[in-house]
Amino acid sequence: MPGSIQSIERAAAILRLLARGSGRLGVGDIAGALGLAKPTAHGILRTLHGVGFVAQDPATGKYQLGATLLHLGTSYLDANELRSRAINWADGLAARTGASVRIGTPAEAKVVVVHHVFRPDHTEQALEVGELLPAHATALGKVLLAYDTDLAAAVRASDLPSLTRRTIVDRATLARALAGVRRAGWAGDTEEFRPGEAGIAAPIRAHGGLVVGAIGISGPVDRLCDSQLRPRPALVADVLDAAHAVSRDLGAGH
Amino acid sequence: MPGSIQSIERAAAILRLLARGSGRLGVGDIAGALGLAKPTAHGILRTLHGVGFVAQDPATGKYQLGATLLHLGTSYLDANELRSRAINWADGLAARTGASVRIGTPAEAKVVVVHHVFRPDHTEQALEVGELLPAHATALGKVLLAYDTDLAAAVRASDLPSLTRRTIVDRATLARALAGVRRAGWAGDTEEFRPGEAGIAAPIRAHGGLVVGAIGISGPVDRLCDSQLRPRPALVADVLDAAHAVSRDLGAGH
Repeated sequence: MPGSIQSIERAAAILRLLARGSGRLGVGDIAGALGLAKPTAHGILRTLHGVGFVAQDPATGKYQLGATLLHLGTSYLDANELRSRAINWADGLAARTGASVRIGTPAEAKVVVVHHVFRPDHTEQALEVGELLPAHATALGKVLLAYDTDLAAAVRASDLPSLTRRTIVDRATLARALAGVRRAGWAGDTEEFRPGEAGIAAPIRAHGGLVVGAIGISGPVDRLCDSQLRPRPALVADVLDAAHAVSRDLGAGH
Repeated sequence: MPGSIQSIERAAAILRLLARGSGRLGVGDIAGALGLAKPTAHGILRTLHGVGFVAQDPATGKYQLGATLLHLGTSYLDANELRSRAINWADGLAARTGASVRIGTPAEAKVVVVHHVFRPDHTEQALEVGELLPAHATALGKVLLAYDTDLAAAVRASDLPSLTRRTIVDRATLARALAGVRRAGWAGDTEEFRPGEAGIAAPIRAHGGLVVGAIGISGPVDRLCDSQLRPRPALVADVLDAAHAVSRDLGAGH
């Protein structure tokens, strides 16, 4: 990006690297992964340590993400209008459909879950807030790809990994699917992300009609889809109703 | 800090500023608050926007924290060994004491909550993971202040705001209280943070004996304290037992 500050971009790349895998890396690993000279990586790490964005294990000298990032992530959620406006509608959607509900927004060429309502069946479930979902393989992601040009550009620059035998990995097929999402106003995925699982999602719009997120349900294929593996129309209508309600609360026109 | 990179420090200061208050600021507000020239602030914000650490409201042009920070915060928690080792012991402590349990670690001259177990009474409670607690006014914070020299230095450079009429705001009194914490091996607070509320906390040690966090309970004064407003010895013993168990799992010697 023209005019951007290289040291900040490199610092961000280090943080993203530490957010992957085991989360503990030595300065040599970091320098190698990012193609930086070791003293350059060390200077950035020392500064990130000073501001609390990384921590260093005193025994091994390895770096990991710092506690200040937890506070920044929580502050992001607290200030997130999409999430605060959507919470009640998301609860209602989960109750009506019996499915788990997620609200997502673009981040890191993927979809980050900003709100997650458990499937209302009292089974043990793990909170996925802050998790990244693949954009090309989920209903939430396809909705965001269909309307968010920045996310679409980021995904064009990335791989389309095959997650199941039904994941769309061909770019032309994906482009046709996204045109279909724009025509229909919602997206589905049938075992494209996880075997046996389906999803249905619709866009959330803010003031001026801009798509700022997506809301969707997911669950077993035989609950969400008919015998032709097509999302059940009544569930699609429930998801669209919730998306419209949140959009209205966010000031989108009709 | 010598050798640190100014643009990264300024970027971190902008993110911390956006994490406070309403979370939406214009470039002029940000430049003013941090004493930066407006073009300098703008260059940093543009770079932070490019890496997804800030987002810009298209209608107002104001900046807020970006979704990538949510993912980094979650990744911090996932990699946090203190938290993963402590989860089971924290559940047990809440069940045994009937109080809410928090695990904290230093961040931003305060205590950031990395794990929170609700008071087991089925009342509505808000998850405080990622929240910052004042170090000088909470049992968790006093434990960390007593053993963490970096946190103690950061708090010496900060105010000691009065939160209740019992908050310790005098530095000599605080130093005496911290010496007492080191002697006893645990800390209490009685209405120093919130009226009617008390806390008891103990240090969590990792390999080599280094204090890496604190675990504590909090609840109504009349439940946690005796008639002299002293923490009940049986509850102190429960907290110490949990702290020792987590420390043992983290590899601290005996």
